[in-house]
Amino acid sequence: VLFLSFSYPRHSQNESVVTNPLFSQVCNLANAASLLWHAYKSLPSPSNQVNWAGFYTRDPLSPPSAPQLILGPFQGKVACQTIAFGRGVCGTAAAAGATQLVRDVARFPGHIACDAASRSEIVVPIVAAGRGVVAIIDVDCAVEDGFDEVDREWLERLAKLLAEACDWP
Amino acid sequence: VLFLSFSYPRHSQNESVVTNPLFSQVCNLANAASLLWHAYKSLPSPSNQVNWAGFYTRDPLSPPSAPQLILGPFQGKVACQTIAFGRGVCGTAAAAGATQLVRDVARFPGHIACDAASRSEIVVPIVAAGRGVVAIIDVDCAVEDGFDEVDREWLERLAKLLAEACDWP
Repeated sequence: VLFLSFSYPRHSQNESVVTNPLFSQVCNLANAASLLWHAYKSLPSPSNQVNWAGFYTRDPLSPPSAPQLILGPFQGKVACQTIAFGRGVCGTAAAAGATQLVRDVARFPGHIACDAASRSEIVVPIVAAGRGVVAIIDVDCAVEDGFDEVDREWLERLAKLLAEACDWP
Repeated sequence: VLFLSFSYPRHSQNESVVTNPLFSQVCNLANAASLLWHAYKSLPSPSNQVNWAGFYTRDPLSPPSAPQLILGPFQGKVACQTIAFGRGVCGTAAAAGATQLVRDVARFPGHIACDAASRSEIVVPIVAAGRGVVAIIDVDCAVEDGFDEVDREWLERLAKLLAEACDWP
C-alpha cells in the first residue's frame, strides 16, 4: 500500500467544493480499494486469501445521537449498506476510534457476516482533524489469523494518508 | 443483473439530502459494481473475461462548458480518475448520451487504456430525468468481441434502474 497516490485535485480554492466535498473522496477511495485488494492478492498466504477490501464512511444523514456507517467503494462481494456505530467489527472500530484486529470473527460478539466466507478481519478508523471518525478501512480474510501487527501498522499509515488526502463531508 | 436491489432509504422527506445527495448513490453504485462483476464472472466466456466493471459519475465541480467524468465505485484494477466528456469510449458515451459497444478497443480513436489488458468495452450512459447524463456504466473485457446486443439490452435496463434508484447530485 506504499504506492498509493491521489491525483484528483482538491479544488481547495474553489468554493463549490464546500457544497459537494464528496467527489474526490469517492474517487480516491475507489482507487485505494483497488490498490489494497491487488496489493493483498500479490502477497503470500494468508494475505492473498483476502476476500473483501474497502471502505465505509460516516453517513452525514445519520443523527449524531445514532451515527451510522454507509457502504463506500470496495472490491469483493456485495456488502451491508449501513452499519450502526457500535455494531459488529466495523461499528466497534468507528465507535471506539481504534483499530479492531479480529483473528477469528466467530469469536467476535455481534460480528456481521456480510460474506459468509470471512474468517478474520481488520478494521482501521480514518480520523480527520477536528471531525473524529469519518470512515473506516475494512479488510476481510477467508482464513483465520489473516492479519497481524504488520497489517495494522501499514493500514493505520494508509488511514492517516487518506484522512489528509480526501475532502470529507 | 436482474437481482439488483437498493435498500438504502432515499430520505426523500429529509431536507438534508438536498445538501448531500451523494451517499445513497455511492453505496448503491458500490454494490451494483460488485453484482455486475460477479454476474459477469459467473457467465461463460467471453463474459467471464471481464476485467473491469464500474461507474464514472459526472463531476459537478466541472464547468458546464467542459464537463468531465470522475471515477466512482468499481471492481478491477486502478483506473483514470477523471475523463473529459468526448474523450475515449466513456467520454464519447457521456457526450453522445448513447451506448458505445466497442468490439475492438484498438480501433476506437482516442481509446483510453486504463488497463492494458482490455480488448473490448461497453459503456452505457445513465440519464436522469431532467438532468441529462449523470453517470456511465463501464465494463471492459480482456478479449475482443466481449459484448453483444444482449449485454447492451441488460446494461441499458440497469442504467434505467439506477437512474431512478439513486439521488444524483
